[in-house]
Amino acid sequence: MTTRQLHLNLFLHDTGHHEASWRLPDADPHALLDLAYHQRLARIAEDARFDSLFLADSPVLFGDVGRRPQGRIEPTVLLAALAVTTSRIGLIATASTSYNEPFNLARRLSSVDWISDGRAGWNIVTTAGEAAARNFGLEDQPLHRDRYARASEFLEVATKLWDSWEDDAVVADKAAGVHTLADRVRAIDHRGPHFRVDGPLNAPRSPQAYPVLVQAGSSEDGKAFAGRWAEAVFTAQPTIEEARAFADDVKRRAVENGRDPEHVKILPGIVPILGDTEEEARELEAELDRLIRPEYAREQLARTLRVDPESLAFDRPLPDDLPDEDEIEGAKSRYTLIVQLARRESLTVRELIGRLGGGRGHRTFTGTPVQVADTIQEWFETGAADGFNIMPAVLPSGLEAFAEKVVPILQERGLFRTEYTGRTLREHYGLPRPANRLSAEVASRDAVLSS
Amino acid sequence: MTTRQLHLNLFLHDTGHHEASWRLPDADPHALLDLAYHQRLARIAEDARFDSLFLADSPVLFGDVGRRPQGRIEPTVLLAALAVTTSRIGLIATASTSYNEPFNLARRLSSVDWISDGRAGWNIVTTAGEAAARNFGLEDQPLHRDRYARASEFLEVATKLWDSWEDDAVVADKAAGVHTLADRVRAIDHRGPHFRVDGPLNAPRSPQAYPVLVQAGSSEDGKAFAGRWAEAVFTAQPTIEEARAFADDVKRRAVENGRDPEHVKILPGIVPILGDTEEEARELEAELDRLIRPEYAREQLARTLRVDPESLAFDRPLPDDLPDEDEIEGAKSRYTLIVQLARRESLTVRELIGRLGGGRGHRTFTGTPVQVADTIQEWFETGAADGFNIMPAVLPSGLEAFAEKVVPILQERGLFRTEYTGRTLREHYGLPRPANRLSAEVASRDAVLSS
Repeated sequence: MTTRQLHLNLFLHDTGHHEASWRLPDADPHALLDLAYHQRLARIAEDARFDSLFLADSPVLFGDVGRRPQGRIEPTVLLAALAVTTSRIGLIATASTSYNEPFNLARRLSSVDWISDGRAGWNIVTTAGEAAARNFGLEDQPLHRDRYARASEFLEVATKLWDSWEDDAVVADKAAGVHTLADRVRAIDHRGPHFRVDGPLNAPRSPQAYPVLVQAGSSEDGKAFAGRWAEAVFTAQPTIEEARAFADDVKRRAVENGRDPEHVKILPGIVPILGDTEEEARELEAELDRLIRPEYAREQLARTLRVDPESLAFDRPLPDDLPDEDEIEGAKSRYTLIVQLARRESLTVRELIGRLGGGRGHRTFTGTPVQVADTIQEWFETGAADGFNIMPAVLPSGLEAFAEKVVPILQERGLFRTEYTGRTLREHYGLPRPANRLSAEVASRDAVLSS
Repeated sequence: MTTRQLHLNLFLHDTGHHEASWRLPDADPHALLDLAYHQRLARIAEDARFDSLFLADSPVLFGDVGRRPQGRIEPTVLLAALAVTTSRIGLIATASTSYNEPFNLARRLSSVDWISDGRAGWNIVTTAGEAAARNFGLEDQPLHRDRYARASEFLEVATKLWDSWEDDAVVADKAAGVHTLADRVRAIDHRGPHFRVDGPLNAPRSPQAYPVLVQAGSSEDGKAFAGRWAEAVFTAQPTIEEARAFADDVKRRAVENGRDPEHVKILPGIVPILGDTEEEARELEAELDRLIRPEYAREQLARTLRVDPESLAFDRPLPDDLPDEDEIEGAKSRYTLIVQLARRESLTVRELIGRLGGGRGHRTFTGTPVQVADTIQEWFETGAADGFNIMPAVLPSGLEAFAEKVVPILQERGLFRTEYTGRTLREHYGLPRPANRLSAEVASRDAVLSS
């Protein structure tokens, strides 16, 4: 038995990560707007002792409303509701640094942390795509580099706001009539190229101080950002070698930022398609792929690749003259991953669509529970992963299968907890509660003044 | 028995609307950050068949952190959590049009409406004060008139986003592989002086279509806005005559906007301080007023009046040379109300502080349950009110007393429901579900084209 423990995050996505999952006979195509559906999924994950569950998000409706369910509940609202019917599992909301104000978002995340007694996480995204930009007064999306520059400054502001109250600021002295000590609550007076924010926040320092900071970009800018800020990284890694190189790279960057590499958890995505036999698993996968409408999928692929859909022939490989990653101002790492996958495995457009329908670039693993557990163990023990972002192809059935059949194997092997030992999301992931940067600054200034 | 029914909204505010309520022996000074506390209050109000509960809000920490609890949970987050443990009561969040993006806020309100099965309301505020402005990149607050111009355009954008999906857009046709009909989901392509928003929203039209639109400004701009948009108006009215004039004024403006005056509910605030005898009620009031720290309260008053605190002598009336309402760019109607109250009743600064500590300009009613019920009935039956915004001086005890002692009297008199008859907040208030403006526009354009 190893002392290092595996981490599991449930990536909640519609009726499942396979784009045709809503068309299965048992699927509820209205589930995305149904609180009871999400409560049920959260309960299954919590009963299986998952560290956390996670909601992706983008403030935009993508083009193909026919293709799959798209109307959804905003993550901080949904997670606040899920906080009520769960007690241990972490709750990670995606929110954009490009299309929020730091004061408002820092405050809502602090609120979720209060409501959940310290179970909030924030998946930090810069939001690719001009469609989103056009919901916020812009003609086109900001450049990739500018989005990351704004994201860095956003984090500076947000962490200062979370530190604007000392932990001991509230004294609640009824006799003296003093609720909070004024000198323990400080303005932040942030002045930067993107933001001017006076603060302080209008909430005390929350149970975790900061939500767990999660990030998923794997471009150069994305990895630099992760090295500086991320405490957990969601990533799409097709092979164990690439995953290990990625993990080493991000942890090295954390060290360069003066951080402990143990405090950055690498969580590759995995799409398990489970069967009691390999054959059963392959049948389920084939059934799902048959339900993909190829013309929708081709349009989606063409948009990611920034090419005309007509230029993609179903039974031929991708065209040679695709743009370079440098020219892509959208989701750079997604783009590169898809192109490399198609080239490496010489896939036709139709085959590529099948692969993306399941995992959208993440590793689809079709097999028996033992086979999936073996893979997880191998990746975990060789440093390719600190845990996994579990992306069931079909929900809730794929989650139920994973919880009932794979998790017990991982527990028997001593890789995964059988009971929660911590209370907060930080405790689940073995992450420290951040020290207060602003009070440290004040203390060192006072020391200089008195010396 | 009258067929017109009274409406009751619970204004949740800290440990009560009296600023010293947190200092009472039974008060929990940490209650504001405690979900269980809010769940308890919501349950009491729902058991008493209140139409709704409401949370005020401003994205700022005001100066006096010593004076009373200020750190709080953001309203859409808190109401999402309360939606889970209630099933009928309406949930009204305050949110600012000056410091939000329409896409984000329209979406969160739609999300709360989905989560609660049609119980969301939005108290629309423009957010006075330069301290809030300085959390959002501005040096000072926008002018009062500009804030209202932005608010009007914000409502144009938000309602178009809520109408961007037809009610019948989602068909969920599994066999055909068509989830949503693309021609029933439309871009809004809004272009205006404050906002450019393409849309559509990334959520279907919610159970109520729009949250119930509530507003509370009583300045000229505020009343004009209410006439155009508000379906319920919270207002501070010190006398029955002024309340009736106000109600007539707002309803006349609604008619001028082509609206049914019955679809604007006027809800004056009332701070009940209840005792089984008048003497007992007066003792409670006196106990509360003794707990106000006058130096804090004077600073707060000075800020509202835009004068130096030192210019306010405790045992003298307000100085004569106060600014005109025209010069106030903050909360105009609050300013005027306070100055008029002080002048009309020749109050000293100390007496004025006592009055404001309880009701902050709202009518404080100290007496027995029958006396309070008599007042409510008189205001309701003479057209001064369609219902009341109940602001207990102390929570939860003041709410419990109102629910146990005043509500049954109102029910016996046939003024107030004994059971909920509707499901949604709109149904509680007798408000229609809005027709879809965008689909009406398309229909009339098609009619022109084919004629």
